Amino acid sequence: MTIAIDAMGGDLFPKNPVLGAIKAVNEKNISVILVGDEPAIKKELDGLRFNSQKVEIVHTTQIVDMDEPVASALRSKRNSSMRVCYNLHKSGDAEGVVSAGNSGAMLAIGRFVLKTIPGIDRPCISALLPSLKSNKVLLVDAGANMDCTPEHLLQFAILGDVYMENIHSVKEPRIGLLNVGAEEGKGDELSKGAYDLIKSSSLNFLGNIEGKEFFNGDIDIVVTDGFAGNVLLKSVQGAANFVSNALKQEIKKSLLAKIGAVLMMPAFKGLKKRTNYAEFGGAPLLGLKGNGIVCHGSSNPEALLFGINFAEWAAQAKLVERMEEKILEYNDILIKKQA
Amino acid sequence: MTIAIDAMGGDLFPKNPVLGAIKAVNEKNISVILVGDEPAIKKELDGLRFNSQKVEIVHTTQIVDMDEPVASALRSKRNSSMRVCYNLHKSGDAEGVVSAGNSGAMLAIGRFVLKTIPGIDRPCISALLPSLKSNKVLLVDAGANMDCTPEHLLQFAILGDVYMENIHSVKEPRIGLLNVGAEEGKGDELSKGAYDLIKSSSLNFLGNIEGKEFFNGDIDIVVTDGFAGNVLLKSVQGAANFVSNALKQEIKKSLLAKIGAVLMMPAFKGLKKRTNYAEFGGAPLLGLKGNGIVCHGSSNPEALLFGINFAEWAAQAKLVERMEEKILEYNDILIKKQA
Repeated sequence: MTIAIDAMGGDLFPKNPVLGAIKAVNEKNISVILVGDEPAIKKELDGLRFNSQKVEIVHTTQIVDMDEPVASALRSKRNSSMRVCYNLHKSGDAEGVVSAGNSGAMLAIGRFVLKTIPGIDRPCISALLPSLKSNKVLLVDAGANMDCTPEHLLQFAILGDVYMENIHSVKEPRIGLLNVGAEEGKGDELSKGAYDLIKSSSLNFLGNIEGKEFFNGDIDIVVTDGFAGNVLLKSVQGAANFVSNALKQEIKKSLLAKIGAVLMMPAFKGLKKRTNYAEFGGAPLLGLKGNGIVCHGSSNPEALLFGINFAEWAAQAKLVERMEEKILEYNDILIKKQA
Repeated sequence: MTIAIDAMGGDLFPKNPVLGAIKAVNEKNISVILVGDEPAIKKELDGLRFNSQKVEIVHTTQIVDMDEPVASALRSKRNSSMRVCYNLHKSGDAEGVVSAGNSGAMLAIGRFVLKTIPGIDRPCISALLPSLKSNKVLLVDAGANMDCTPEHLLQFAILGDVYMENIHSVKEPRIGLLNVGAEEGKGDELSKGAYDLIKSSSLNFLGNIEGKEFFNGDIDIVVTDGFAGNVLLKSVQGAANFVSNALKQEIKKSLLAKIGAVLMMPAFKGLKKRTNYAEFGGAPLLGLKGNGIVCHGSSNPEALLFGINFAEWAAQAKLVERMEEKILEYNDILIKKQA
C-alpha cells in the first residue's frame, strides 16, 4: 500500500508531514511518496532510520498557501505538491492522498483530478467527534458546501453511512439531521426538504437532532450543510477552549485549586486523550473517486500518521467502490427529485 | 414599574415564576401582575412575605404547552396566560412581559399582540454569552427566524446594536457576521449579501467571525440567521456538557483526581458563576413594539428574577423608542434593498 503525502502542507512543513510519513513507514505496512521540494525533504529525512525501499520522493516546486483562494490554487498551481499527490493517486502510483494543507484546495483539486463518484454532485468534508459513550460521531458536511439542496444532504448521508459502516464497523449507522428542534416540520426550507427525502430512503434515519445532543452518543452520523456543519464544528472548538481557558483563569485565583489541578492531572489527561485532535484531526473527503484525507494545519506527526491510517483503511475497504454500489440504490430517489 | 409575569410558563410552574416575581417585588422597585390560574398562584403565595400592594393576580384558564405548535397557541388559546400578559403590556397596565414558557409562542404571540417596530420585518431572539474577557457577547438571531435575507440580518444587527448600547452600556458595539471563514467573500449567498449590506451601514462592523472566536471577547455582537444561531447556541451547550460530563467520568477513575476535584471546587464554582445560566438564560425578544423576555424552561426563581430585571431595564431605557429612532437612519438602505 502506497500513500502520497503532501510534504509541503500544514503549518510546519516539510518537517511534520515527513515525520508522520516515516512513522507510517516504520509502524505500518505502508510505503510513502513524499511530494514537495526534494532538498528540503531530504534534509528532514537526514538522520532518520527507515527502510529506504518504502520511501520515494517526487520533486515539485509549487506550494498551495494555507489561505490561498481555491481558484488560484486550481488554475495557477498545476505543479503544486497537492496537485501532484492527486495525479499520483489518479495514475495508480498511490492509493491515497494525505495533506495538512488548505482544505478548500484539497477538495477542489481532488474533485478536478479524481472527479466525483457518479450520483454525487458535491463531495463533502467529514469530521469525527467524540461522544460520552464509546462511539464516535461523524459530521457531514463539516464545511465544504454552501447553499445545499435536500438532495445534497441525502448524498452526504449516504456517503457517511458507507464510511461509518466500512471504516468504523458501525452496522446500520444511526443518522440524525441537524436542526433547531426535534419535531418533524422544524427548521428552514432545506431542513424540511432533507427530512422528507432522507426519511423516504432506506437509511437508518432517526429524525432531527439538536446541537446539544450531538455528544450524547445516541447517534452515529449528523447530516447538515457545510455552513451549519462548520458553525457547529468551530463553535464546539470555541466552547471547549472557553471552558479550558476560563477554568485556568479561575484556578489561578486559588492556591487550593492550583494543588487540586495538579492532583487532577490524570483526569485532565484522560479528557485530553478522548478529545485528541491528532486522532480526530484527519478529515476524509467523501464522494471523490479516490481516497483524499485532509488534516488540520497544526497537525503534529502523530496526527499525520492518523491521516495516513485513514487513507490506508479507505483504500483497503475499497470505500469508493462501496459508495458507488450504495449510491446506485438511491438513483431513483435522487434522479426523480432532481428532475 | 409593573411587569406582567406568565405564572404558567416553564417546567416548574407556577412555583418558579411566582418565587421569581416575589424576589423582584422584595428586592427591586417593581410591581408584578401574576397571570395564570388564580387558586394555584395563591397557593404558591401562601406563607411568602411581600408587599401585597405590589402584587396583582389576573386569572386565566388556558396554558400554552412547552412543545405546542405556534399556530395552535396563537389561534386556539386566546385566553392563555402568555397572551393575557401581552394584552396587559399592550394596554399599558404592564411595561414588560416575562415568561419561561414556549419561546416560539412567546415570539409569535408578542408579534401578534404588540406588532413589530416599523422597519423591522421579523423580531429575533437574542442570547447573551460569556467571554474570556470582561465583556459579554450577544448572539442575534439565536433561533427565531429561518430562511432569512441579508436585510433581515442587517435588522438583527441594528437591534443588537441598540440593545448592547442601551442595556449593557457598550459604546459602538463591535459587530461580527458568523461565517465559515474570516475573509470577505466567504460563506453562503446569505452571508455574502449580509456582509456587503452591513459593511455599507454605519454600524461598527468588524467583518466575518468564526464560531471558534465567539468567546474571545473581541466582539460584542454576532449576527446570523436563526438556524445557524440556534446551531451555535445549542452546540456550545452540548460541548460544555460533554466537557463537564467527560471530566466527571475521568475523575471517577482516579482517587487522586477525586481529591483534586474537591480542592478545585472554588475554581469550578468560579467557572459555573461565569456561565450561570440564570444570568444568561433571559433572552430579550428584539424588534417587538414592547418588552418581551423569554427565559429558559428550566429557569429557577433567580433566573426569572434576571428576566424581570431585563424587562425593567428595557422599559427604563425606552429600548423600543431607541430602536425606532435607530432604524430610521437605515430606512434608505433597507427600502432600497427591498425594492
